[in-house]
Amino acid sequence: MSHPLKTFHPPVRVLMGPGPSDVSARVLLAQARPTIGHLDPAFQDLMEEVKGGLARLFHAPEHACVPLPGPGTCAMEAGIMNMLEPGDVAVVAVNGVFGGRMADMAERAGAEVVRVEQAWGQPVDPEKVEAALWARGAKVLAFVHAETSTGVMSDPGPLCALAREHGAMTIVDCVTSLGGIPVNAAEWRADVIYAGTQKCLSAPPGLAPFAISPRALEAVLARKTKPRTWLYDLRLLMSYWGEGKGGRAYHHTAPVNAVYGLHEAMVAYFEEGEAAAFARHQKTHEQLASGLAALGLDFHVAREHRLPQLNTVIVPEGIDEAKVRGHLLEHFSLEIGAGLGPLKGKVWRIGLMGGSASERHVMICLAALGDALASQGSNVSVRDALKAASR
Amino acid sequence: MSHPLKTFHPPVRVLMGPGPSDVSARVLLAQARPTIGHLDPAFQDLMEEVKGGLARLFHAPEHACVPLPGPGTCAMEAGIMNMLEPGDVAVVAVNGVFGGRMADMAERAGAEVVRVEQAWGQPVDPEKVEAALWARGAKVLAFVHAETSTGVMSDPGPLCALAREHGAMTIVDCVTSLGGIPVNAAEWRADVIYAGTQKCLSAPPGLAPFAISPRALEAVLARKTKPRTWLYDLRLLMSYWGEGKGGRAYHHTAPVNAVYGLHEAMVAYFEEGEAAAFARHQKTHEQLASGLAALGLDFHVAREHRLPQLNTVIVPEGIDEAKVRGHLLEHFSLEIGAGLGPLKGKVWRIGLMGGSASERHVMICLAALGDALASQGSNVSVRDALKAASR
Repeated sequence: MSHPLKTFHPPVRVLMGPGPSDVSARVLLAQARPTIGHLDPAFQDLMEEVKGGLARLFHAPEHACVPLPGPGTCAMEAGIMNMLEPGDVAVVAVNGVFGGRMADMAERAGAEVVRVEQAWGQPVDPEKVEAALWARGAKVLAFVHAETSTGVMSDPGPLCALAREHGAMTIVDCVTSLGGIPVNAAEWRADVIYAGTQKCLSAPPGLAPFAISPRALEAVLARKTKPRTWLYDLRLLMSYWGEGKGGRAYHHTAPVNAVYGLHEAMVAYFEEGEAAAFARHQKTHEQLASGLAALGLDFHVAREHRLPQLNTVIVPEGIDEAKVRGHLLEHFSLEIGAGLGPLKGKVWRIGLMGGSASERHVMICLAALGDALASQGSNVSVRDALKAASR
Repeated sequence: MSHPLKTFHPPVRVLMGPGPSDVSARVLLAQARPTIGHLDPAFQDLMEEVKGGLARLFHAPEHACVPLPGPGTCAMEAGIMNMLEPGDVAVVAVNGVFGGRMADMAERAGAEVVRVEQAWGQPVDPEKVEAALWARGAKVLAFVHAETSTGVMSDPGPLCALAREHGAMTIVDCVTSLGGIPVNAAEWRADVIYAGTQKCLSAPPGLAPFAISPRALEAVLARKTKPRTWLYDLRLLMSYWGEGKGGRAYHHTAPVNAVYGLHEAMVAYFEEGEAAAFARHQKTHEQLASGLAALGLDFHVAREHRLPQLNTVIVPEGIDEAKVRGHLLEHFSLEIGAGLGPLKGKVWRIGLMGGSASERHVMICLAALGDALASQGSNVSVRDALKAASR
């Protein structure tokens, strides 16, 4: 306990795991600007810009948009705890870690949870969801757009439409999708929709972009019981962010410097433009896929359901997956992710998110992976993989 | 919605409100170091240092200490939601905003809450607390060490001893005390104890130092029901921080850069030394008090209960308090705080916390306050106030 603390100098990494992704110097430096008070008029102006920026990112002009203080999961908790009261029925689609987490939270909110299970690596099946919505009068349908644990994309439009048909509201987890592939709350008619900062927006972790539709906010304001959270009680949070009647009310102290970082990440994002950012994520994914094929590696997910920004790659027979990750970190200072749950030891998760979605990242990753596989006796050609990627 | 976002350049302020306090360049720059993965071995080493640093700050060698991801209030929520199950009885001392918040949270946890009310500006009364503990078999006693809303210090030692006598565990809010006045979890035998980063430690807001005693953690692990929070479920959090059996388990993505900042703030704090930091807070408080007296201003709190780091000053008759704060901000770029709840419009809250506890801050504040009062027709001498403070 008495050993002295010394200034920490982090190693310089290449971040290609499931998040955080590489943060640019301009965003890091934005976070280093002088802290001001969270009630400062200048900070309140910044809040308004951030809210406007989030509405653009989510394509949610009618939603109330705020960055919640905490990890991406805090937005999940805010959505679940505010939308559900004890005794409500929630249909939760579970096709990976994060769907399972939503179901667990919904139970803690006191709801009756109907889980619609799907194999890890498959998208959410609208037919199964519809059967569950038929069987029970659900108040909420919750599902994950981009499953970070499997690399699978589920299609939110049809799922949100089904929920509406059956009178349910929707909670859509876009933690890994926002910024990397199209997210459109208005088109989907999604009710609660949220994301993280450390994925395709490439800001440091610590805030969770969150949006809620007018009808869902109305439902929250009409609750019979208080939500089982004070910190993420939307009635209190929305008035802190100036979304209630009667001006801003003190609630918590916003993470001021993290808000600077998210704001600057959005400035950079809009400079590039959404279409260009999506194209860049798709292109680097295709480069990576070509290179991986040349290394004899396969994807865990069928082509049509793959997320460009989160690639789950099957660990070949006879390869020690942890040793590969160790090799990458030791010799290339490169981070990729391990598998979770039933995919533990079976896949790697390679992120091409935000600033990490570049040709440079693809080439470093293929060179490093090829070298690691060769060091375990695989007969692979690094040069062929790099050629395939850059073609 | 379509107006462009532009890089934000915050004004340079002098922060003397109830937090955040002025953050040093070294801490700001620490936050700007490259983001690394939260599961990186280098980050896990940093986590260990941070845990050790928090144990030193709290004087809690036996407690499990972690920085929770979120505002100070997230630590309150973690404490309340984990320590209480539906039907448990909680005695909550309420002598300001934050005691009231604890009571509200305890109700949301499903507990029966016995409020021990005290006038705002008075410390918690051990006799009243004892009466409440007698009357009901309480599982938990919760109170605030340093009430940020009133500037009052309550004495935790006797309160924790009473709780033990009656078989209750304690939750002690040290958000505003940690780093500014003695906090000693071991001596008090406090069970759950937590703080904020943006007060006397002068790191940006965004993390909440948290400590829990072995017997309290055991009680959490033996709960019959799951806590009404997933994000702050200590069983999950402690294993993420390597405090459980069987190694670290993924839970959330820690706010990596905020952890850099808190760590560097602790490095700086231990360089100065705890005794020197306490003496500095006390000395600047006395300087401020002398200067305020020369301006004819009184404290809201009796001398023996005053927090040196949070000074509630009575707004004199005939003075427009909001106009004074506006004058300070406009002409001196100086932030002080307004009153909350029943003290709204009646007091100012002047913080002397962490980096803001310096003679420079005192002199600027007195000059600015004197000027603001004179601009509203008060017959005060700025020069006399400055002389009194520097004597």
